[in-house]
Amino acid sequence: MEKIEPPHVAVILVAPQMSENIGAAARVMSNFGIRSLRIVNPRDGWPSDKAVQLAAHGEFILKEAIIYNELNAAIEDLTFIIATTATSRNLNKEVISPRKAIEIACLQASQGNRVGIMLGRESTGLTNNELEYADVIATIPTSSLNRSLNLAQALAIIAYEYMLHVIQHENNEKDKYLPYAELNSGAIAPRREIKSFLDRLVPILERERFFSIPQKRDQMLNKLRTMLIKAKLSSSELRILHGILRALS
Amino acid sequence: MEKIEPPHVAVILVAPQMSENIGAAARVMSNFGIRSLRIVNPRDGWPSDKAVQLAAHGEFILKEAIIYNELNAAIEDLTFIIATTATSRNLNKEVISPRKAIEIACLQASQGNRVGIMLGRESTGLTNNELEYADVIATIPTSSLNRSLNLAQALAIIAYEYMLHVIQHENNEKDKYLPYAELNSGAIAPRREIKSFLDRLVPILERERFFSIPQKRDQMLNKLRTMLIKAKLSSSELRILHGILRALS
Repeated sequence: MEKIEPPHVAVILVAPQMSENIGAAARVMSNFGIRSLRIVNPRDGWPSDKAVQLAAHGEFILKEAIIYNELNAAIEDLTFIIATTATSRNLNKEVISPRKAIEIACLQASQGNRVGIMLGRESTGLTNNELEYADVIATIPTSSLNRSLNLAQALAIIAYEYMLHVIQHENNEKDKYLPYAELNSGAIAPRREIKSFLDRLVPILERERFFSIPQKRDQMLNKLRTMLIKAKLSSSELRILHGILRALS
Repeated sequence: MEKIEPPHVAVILVAPQMSENIGAAARVMSNFGIRSLRIVNPRDGWPSDKAVQLAAHGEFILKEAIIYNELNAAIEDLTFIIATTATSRNLNKEVISPRKAIEIACLQASQGNRVGIMLGRESTGLTNNELEYADVIATIPTSSLNRSLNLAQALAIIAYEYMLHVIQHENNEKDKYLPYAELNSGAIAPRREIKSFLDRLVPILERERFFSIPQKRDQMLNKLRTMLIKAKLSSSELRILHGILRALS
């Protein structure tokens, strides 16, 4: 099977106000495998020490970032643009979830197109005019408690969806199963080991008159067995229980 | 159709180092509709002006936050705990995606249980010992370019998945929560009941010289705690264990 490159995606920050947020955005981009950062008219100038301080291993993205004087130039090589807004406005654009936006965009990218994720200034977001450059508008669902997302947080969520999409695609491509399915769960002991533990426990409990109501003995045994099965114990955990039993009896 | 309350979820920050990150965490919680913040041993003390500066409309969460001296106290009323780590470690816990973790946790919560999302200190995350208190470990997939997520960014992604889950559930009024596991008969006992069982078991084991190798005592204690958490025992099942202990000792 032919290996397909992850979709090319660029982040465009339009008139960001705080350099710290540019740094945090670079960190998040590196976390989720997006390299290309384009900044249109950063308010606090460029380069920025404050941005570097917040980038935490994402400094290379700041170094490679390109600064533009106008939005048009920053997006000219792109073919599909996702814009993000806090609230849907009265525009003639599709407003969709980040997940759907990434899905559509990556489909575009896999056809050799180039995708942009565009985020606006912290105070007021993207202007209606800037939104006109987008193919789709993605709105992150928020609680009525507080609809205002931090710039880098909003980017984190969209970049995370991109990462998930890439992982899923790579796995399908190679016909692998999901990496985050149940790893590490440890081998569960076979039923016979549960049985032999109970076979040892029950006579001791009988000797110690644990089953005070004889009619309820079977019911209690079932409860014990259920508990042991539900616990999905490994063989070594059952050995610990044997050790406790040995110590106590 | 009966209306089900959104699952009760609390965020537990364990030994956070920078107050700014606590403020950013509060902002993110308010963005995604999570109110209960618990902070264990914040390095820079409490309350914190810096935290308030970063909270941006999430100040009410900081005001309602509760400070603890130890992790045990912060989680004693909870029944299901998601821990977050950057890398999977060699622990006997399920390691799953944030999406899966939220799904499982919210099913738990729909049965009247109480969910915690636990995040560790910025520098080194949660210790292996702290991780022992969790039911599942959620790892956010990251790029090899930079695996280190900012604390509030990591929380943003998990809280976003929670928000999506709640929205999806509300939109599918007909979809009742499915029972988490067929064997899971009753509500899960809160952590304090597990702790009080261990508090009773351990002195008995010490008296009976169960801990033959003193250096391995803590390791063995962790194994016992893990086993009890993994078993998802109900209060009545724990009473059975108390009964066994009484009979044997």
